[in-house]
Amino acid sequence: MSEAVSVPAALVPGQTIGILGGGQLGRMLAIAAARLGLRVHTFDPDPGCPAADVSKRLTVARFDDAAAVERFADSVDVITFEWESVPTEALRALADAPPIRPPAEAVCVLQDRLSEKRFLDGLGLRVAPFEPLDDPAQLEHALERIGLPAIVKTRHAGYDGKGQVRITCLDDLEPARALVAQQPCVLEGFVRFEREASVIAARSTDGAWTTYEPGENVHRDGILHTTRVPARLTGAQREQAVDIAERILTGLDYVGVLGVELFVTPADLLVNEVAPRVHNSGHWTEAGCQVDQFEQHIRAVAGWPLGPTTRHSDVTMENLIGDEVERWRQHLVNPTASLRLYGKSSVRPGRKMGHVNRVEGRRAS
Amino acid sequence: MSEAVSVPAALVPGQTIGILGGGQLGRMLAIAAARLGLRVHTFDPDPGCPAADVSKRLTVARFDDAAAVERFADSVDVITFEWESVPTEALRALADAPPIRPPAEAVCVLQDRLSEKRFLDGLGLRVAPFEPLDDPAQLEHALERIGLPAIVKTRHAGYDGKGQVRITCLDDLEPARALVAQQPCVLEGFVRFEREASVIAARSTDGAWTTYEPGENVHRDGILHTTRVPARLTGAQREQAVDIAERILTGLDYVGVLGVELFVTPADLLVNEVAPRVHNSGHWTEAGCQVDQFEQHIRAVAGWPLGPTTRHSDVTMENLIGDEVERWRQHLVNPTASLRLYGKSSVRPGRKMGHVNRVEGRRAS
Repeated sequence: MSEAVSVPAALVPGQTIGILGGGQLGRMLAIAAARLGLRVHTFDPDPGCPAADVSKRLTVARFDDAAAVERFADSVDVITFEWESVPTEALRALADAPPIRPPAEAVCVLQDRLSEKRFLDGLGLRVAPFEPLDDPAQLEHALERIGLPAIVKTRHAGYDGKGQVRITCLDDLEPARALVAQQPCVLEGFVRFEREASVIAARSTDGAWTTYEPGENVHRDGILHTTRVPARLTGAQREQAVDIAERILTGLDYVGVLGVELFVTPADLLVNEVAPRVHNSGHWTEAGCQVDQFEQHIRAVAGWPLGPTTRHSDVTMENLIGDEVERWRQHLVNPTASLRLYGKSSVRPGRKMGHVNRVEGRRAS
Repeated sequence: MSEAVSVPAALVPGQTIGILGGGQLGRMLAIAAARLGLRVHTFDPDPGCPAADVSKRLTVARFDDAAAVERFADSVDVITFEWESVPTEALRALADAPPIRPPAEAVCVLQDRLSEKRFLDGLGLRVAPFEPLDDPAQLEHALERIGLPAIVKTRHAGYDGKGQVRITCLDDLEPARALVAQQPCVLEGFVRFEREASVIAARSTDGAWTTYEPGENVHRDGILHTTRVPARLTGAQREQAVDIAERILTGLDYVGVLGVELFVTPADLLVNEVAPRVHNSGHWTEAGCQVDQFEQHIRAVAGWPLGPTTRHSDVTMENLIGDEVERWRQHLVNPTASLRLYGKSSVRPGRKMGHVNRVEGRRAS
């Protein structure tokens, strides 16, 4: 008898993708799924979450409600998520759970900033110097090794600059100690970078992988403001970005789309962080590629072949944050802009309300 | 006091568009609305209709259920539809109905093949020769004036070749008489055309209008099979198509997207029919233009400015009809194709299950 090869199950149109998290990323994933004839069941604690508007079915429950998660898992054909802080342990504990894509093991590695950095370091990739901080007493010793300036980041659940304290002088030590006292952290050395870039990559159930062209990112107050393609990168830097993405995808036995944030220094590319999901810096693909990151993720988690990632247009993606959304009419009348709004009812400072893709040139083919 | 100018109400993001009819056109309109931050309430008799998957809210009721229509109207900020056979009289009878876009008067004209032809004729547009048939006894006299071959079409509710009998010889008279005995019809002369084309046009609440480039259509068994842009048309024919569309939009005081089907003859363009809605022959705009016909319709009915209609790509749209949908995997791996499936659970001959847009060239800009 020949050895049996396990072929991961592929969905067929009409089957259901379960998405944990119903924010704007879930909303855009749900739309991508619907366009391919797949149904979506969203799980979110908020009945008014952005994805609720476009999901076939919605479960409103807390992510730590194990019974609700189990019922949800029973009702779907594959589980994915729009957000890395999903209850991976609870999911793995389910007896007859459908496939979880990306795999829970990969997400566990990336959920924890310390295990993420150790994983990247183990792949031979450059990251900022780091030290674990389990106790405020370790701070001074860690600072001696890392040097100033440095930054304390919580190991879990930080995003958009939340859960971070910069240390540039001794006055910053007190808030840094307070953060470490609350939860385990990592101390990171400051990287003097020329610019920030990111690469959106995808891997399918059969191990095929692909990357989109790197985008150049500008942050404001710790939140992504714009992504521009083409990024100002050399050919060698582009090749290195693809190589980094491939090593991460393969190292995690990944399925789905992920986003790799990079610091571009004169010498090298450093990996800042890896998000196991579609990524804000990949929204430009909607206007720049035939298959955008959302369709790509749905294809991957459905067990379908990946789509082409060739870029046909120069695009600047701009986030509409907080009251910037009030300028929506202005974007609507710009003939090069595509406006996307997330259906969030209340505007708050720092809240991502929508984005706009401006096409700045198109390539002939 | 200066004269008051009535400014039609414009929606703001978060408000709700009511869509009568939840088929694939409603589904694609709902997605377009969601992407612009608008909510959708779909009204359809079938709880499993394609638009149900992507609508914030669904009313399941018959279109002739006046109470359900009234409750629906009360819950939305504007009413539109994906389908011309909507109960316009019931809507107009509502006391505090929200705006109906396109206007019910325009739809009434186009719902009836006879009033449609008289309207087009009155605009000075060429149509196939026609005669009303209210009674089977009128058939022979009408045939004398129109000549053979000819075609009997029901005045109401025919689409995709349904409700039609071709008369090429005297043997066809019996089925033709039977159709006229059932409901009022029109006898149309056969047009010897070189090809079929269509133009998708839009008009906003402030009277601005725009057209997409005409597409060239191929029908099979009375159902649209492919639309291709660019169409094989002369410059003069293109100008004539735009002029036809403008006269129809203005003549109807239209708001929204409509589709004008044209017969291309060596001498002229004839109007075959006008659909007061987004149109199957406009699906290519998804892959060929920055703002597709679905977003354009949503912009128009929301009282927002129209988007650009410039075509950046050569596209062939192919409908997936009946069991053609079983080739979905083949389209998924074609690097120039975008697959769209409508989420219909049962495959029936002649049923539109999805479509695919193939990009055959892209223009630089």
